[in-house]
Amino acid sequence: MMQELPLSKAYRLLEPGPVVLLTTAQQGRANVMTLSWHMMVDFEPPLVACVVSSANHSFAALQATKECVIAVPAVELAPKVVEVGNCSGRDRNKFTTFGLTPLPAELVAPPLVAECFANLECKVVDTTLVNQFNLFVLEVLKAWTDPAQKHPRTIHHHGYGTFVVDGETIKLKSRMR
Amino acid sequence: MMQELPLSKAYRLLEPGPVVLLTTAQQGRANVMTLSWHMMVDFEPPLVACVVSSANHSFAALQATKECVIAVPAVELAPKVVEVGNCSGRDRNKFTTFGLTPLPAELVAPPLVAECFANLECKVVDTTLVNQFNLFVLEVLKAWTDPAQKHPRTIHHHGYGTFVVDGETIKLKSRMR
Repeated sequence: MMQELPLSKAYRLLEPGPVVLLTTAQQGRANVMTLSWHMMVDFEPPLVACVVSSANHSFAALQATKECVIAVPAVELAPKVVEVGNCSGRDRNKFTTFGLTPLPAELVAPPLVAECFANLECKVVDTTLVNQFNLFVLEVLKAWTDPAQKHPRTIHHHGYGTFVVDGETIKLKSRMR
Repeated sequence: MMQELPLSKAYRLLEPGPVVLLTTAQQGRANVMTLSWHMMVDFEPPLVACVVSSANHSFAALQATKECVIAVPAVELAPKVVEVGNCSGRDRNKFTTFGLTPLPAELVAPPLVAECFANLECKVVDTTLVNQFNLFVLEVLKAWTDPAQKHPRTIHHHGYGTFVVDGETIKLKSRMR
């Protein structure tokens, strides 16, 4: 279902700044949250920083287990992505509530999200700035994409439920990776 | 020319993940680079993390002066943004080379970029992860937008000169800020 993506290309999924889902698992219970505050930190191995508020139920699981999956949804999933962000995993199983399908990951306990076009299995590699800024540094251990989703358009949060969807693609002569 | 934006709204400029310009100034000499690796860290005061490679000429200025401006360009500037990223400020004045207009900032020495629709005056507030990850945490001191650019479409880097331009806007019922 998911196809492995070379780690050297993982940055292309997050560098454009899409809204993503983040899954965690603790004591056999998986959870999923919505996340927009992430950035690439290095190409290979791919390192990603993200800010997960300590107000989020996922915070404790991420800090304790040091594992997560970043799943990248296309615009068709936007209503579910927003609903996932509107409630807490404290109260419910968000996978069953919103009809998201957890798939076993290969190297971490948190699940992939079958409906997302890309999934990144991650471990926490630095927690220095967690206390001060809720800032985690993750290493991507394994990257997956769904070949059936050929031209996924991601969404970008502009605040209070306003999202901008990917539009046209342009090519320019860049020496940047 | 630029209109002040309340700091409480500054996150809406960076959360969507646009390619931005980063200006620095050292010993009276301004420089500008292209940056895609940034994320919001807190709403207010707005905190932003960014990764500026030590291979970039701007790295030394940012580390020494602890000041920068993040300028957000719309798609019309994309060719210049790529050219800025293709060369180093070691060799040339990139403002004059590419016809970008530096404007004096109010609280920091690095200039705003007149052609960009938004400019964020920033100071470095944390350098804990600079040595290990080139990761700076910035505080936005002042935010400006250009009211003449009414519907700016930003660009998002997908690697090697491929950029996706903002498309349609959708509204969903979100409880997220």
